[in-house]
Amino acid sequence: MPHHRDADDGLAAEAASLDAADPLARHRDAFVGAESALVYFDGNSLGRPPRATAERLSRFVTDEWGGRLIRGWDEAWMQLPFAIGDRIGAIALGAASGQTVIGDSTTVLLYKLLRAALDAQSAADPDRVEIVVGRDDFPTDRYLVEGIAAERGARVVWVDVDTSRGVDADLLRAAVGPRTAVVLLSHVSYRSGYLADGPGLTAIAHEAGALVLWDLCHSAGSVPMDLDAWGADLAVGCTYKYLNGGPGSPAFAYVASRHQHRLVQPVQGWMGAADVFSMGPVYRPADGMRRFLSGTPPVLAMIAMQDTLDLLEDAGIAAVRTKSVALTDFAIRVADGILSPLGVRLASPRDAAERGGHVTLSHPAMRAVTARLWRDDVIPDYRDPHGLRIGLSPLSTSFIETLTGLRAVAEAVRAES
Amino acid sequence: MPHHRDADDGLAAEAASLDAADPLARHRDAFVGAESALVYFDGNSLGRPPRATAERLSRFVTDEWGGRLIRGWDEAWMQLPFAIGDRIGAIALGAASGQTVIGDSTTVLLYKLLRAALDAQSAADPDRVEIVVGRDDFPTDRYLVEGIAAERGARVVWVDVDTSRGVDADLLRAAVGPRTAVVLLSHVSYRSGYLADGPGLTAIAHEAGALVLWDLCHSAGSVPMDLDAWGADLAVGCTYKYLNGGPGSPAFAYVASRHQHRLVQPVQGWMGAADVFSMGPVYRPADGMRRFLSGTPPVLAMIAMQDTLDLLEDAGIAAVRTKSVALTDFAIRVADGILSPLGVRLASPRDAAERGGHVTLSHPAMRAVTARLWRDDVIPDYRDPHGLRIGLSPLSTSFIETLTGLRAVAEAVRAES
Repeated sequence: MPHHRDADDGLAAEAASLDAADPLARHRDAFVGAESALVYFDGNSLGRPPRATAERLSRFVTDEWGGRLIRGWDEAWMQLPFAIGDRIGAIALGAASGQTVIGDSTTVLLYKLLRAALDAQSAADPDRVEIVVGRDDFPTDRYLVEGIAAERGARVVWVDVDTSRGVDADLLRAAVGPRTAVVLLSHVSYRSGYLADGPGLTAIAHEAGALVLWDLCHSAGSVPMDLDAWGADLAVGCTYKYLNGGPGSPAFAYVASRHQHRLVQPVQGWMGAADVFSMGPVYRPADGMRRFLSGTPPVLAMIAMQDTLDLLEDAGIAAVRTKSVALTDFAIRVADGILSPLGVRLASPRDAAERGGHVTLSHPAMRAVTARLWRDDVIPDYRDPHGLRIGLSPLSTSFIETLTGLRAVAEAVRAES
Repeated sequence: MPHHRDADDGLAAEAASLDAADPLARHRDAFVGAESALVYFDGNSLGRPPRATAERLSRFVTDEWGGRLIRGWDEAWMQLPFAIGDRIGAIALGAASGQTVIGDSTTVLLYKLLRAALDAQSAADPDRVEIVVGRDDFPTDRYLVEGIAAERGARVVWVDVDTSRGVDADLLRAAVGPRTAVVLLSHVSYRSGYLADGPGLTAIAHEAGALVLWDLCHSAGSVPMDLDAWGADLAVGCTYKYLNGGPGSPAFAYVASRHQHRLVQPVQGWMGAADVFSMGPVYRPADGMRRFLSGTPPVLAMIAMQDTLDLLEDAGIAAVRTKSVALTDFAIRVADGILSPLGVRLASPRDAAERGGHVTLSHPAMRAVTARLWRDDVIPDYRDPHGLRIGLSPLSTSFIETLTGLRAVAEAVRAES
């Protein structure tokens, strides 16, 4: 086997012993494809489906949609965005009930909350017209901020960041001030996997009188958080990554109770109105989280994520984080051993306390490496510049899968260099 | 049987003979629940699921999501919003390809297109700051217009309409002028079922220099249309009514080719950017319909509607309309026969050329009547004031089901009056 020429045989023994000792190993079989030889390193883009999900969806079609028909709305579905939101809040976010809801896409929810926060801040203090955002943040975050600033006459303050890290306390402190309305921060950077200091950055923004909108896309379901204890204001996150909601499943939004009454979002639809079924002549926003909804909730699309919520609830988010750290630590040891001699550089923080659930490996050939790996059923993803992202889903990834995949990366780097 | 006391026995014979002669009758068995005694009059709110959908969804989870994982995006899903959009365009809208896409909720798509149209019109002519909308339109339409006018400094021109009809040529002609930017029109009124004159109203708006945004929620899949031939500008419609996409399935948007390059919507996300995977520093809208998308497309939620598109393609939208007219004509004859003596009034146009797929029956007791009917497995819905909506889905509703349901309405009106 060619990879044995370079690999440290001790890594295989280590992977086997880590798997044997892993209390979450039993959950791997809950996912479709766990039995196949394919290596999946992209659960941070699209999580694997739990096996239970196919049956859950087909039962929903026949029994609930087909059996209850329109009555399903009154009986269950109107509450589902709040019930699932509250479960995500309790299991993954550290959010008390009544603050989390399933809504539109991540992009649309970010737009609505960012608009609501900016408008409220500017109304209270006309000098607060700046939005702070990292120049290396996910494109949607940057594009949205740019568009909102243009349409509202606000100004963007870009925070320059090393692509191997993210916005930290020093950078944020230098960017905020009496003109800051809102700070949009990634909890885990999509590119580097840098894990921001949630309570620390929230406090820095608050000292400047700004609100914080947390983008939790790359952390929810993998990194524990405690939004209420942080004093967080607003947050939005994906459900198709570590929450395995399926391709394009709807996002969640969190708004701290103390802000809900004073924030109004601009996409005024029937589902956000106080009088949802009387359909009166004038829009009055509903009390509580419903005011952040707009149209008919995407019920069929929010069913699937419940299977992973069951698994997460059973495992506990602390144990998930423990395994996540063990997986990324192991991946970095393997990379140090067999990839670093090939010129591959770690483009993620080495300190686990500053790292989320994925590890980025950098090499000029990584675009071609990714294409080759995909042909061989090893599935990471690629992000400019030169970044191979190794996403490790604590519930479904094993240590031996991690080693097998990284050995394949080594072969591919050799072939493409 | 109590209803026989009042019912014209001839109606049962007529229903049986209409069912026997119905070329679409064979499609009824394609739907979950067709065998049950339940009467479903609310397919205009949530269409029944095709039987094929449970299997389609479960196969998607296992084979596509689970089997292809992230590769599914490159292989198929990135194109799916356009592929399904084009099918809806061809089968139901009279739209050539490249103009229809599946996007967010109806509300969010209406917001994006209305904003794009208003901003483009005002930029071309600063005097065009009026949005024309019917005062009796669906709440989301009215609420959105109100919110957009407030945030953009535009003015709403409300068209007053009899609740048994909708915006017609005379009313529209009186409302538009050199200050009109956009007209938002319902093709079929959610309340009365009034069917607007698509090409006629489009021409009136165009003569005034305005753009038209058609709300097709209550017509798509039931009433044929020919958006390209009308010279329509923009349209949005639901997929969970006559297209049976499931609770909260995503809406479609139509933008005529000639307008696409000059319209820019405000929710700027990665999926609408020209460089979708290079994730560059600045947002440039994509060419074509992709610029109207924002976040990750809701793939799992757009799968189901394909089963009804198969059925509609097989039946042909003209045959669907023929049966729809026959069903609503029959419902009106039954109502004239057994409900009008109880004081129930037709609150929909009597002329089939002015009527969509549902019929509204008015009586002061209708709220209580609806609650009683639901307990007896007869499922219409209720809309203020006093309106019982009888939705008749051409692919899944039979004439005998229609008669059975209206006899139950008669009993319930008697009991609640």
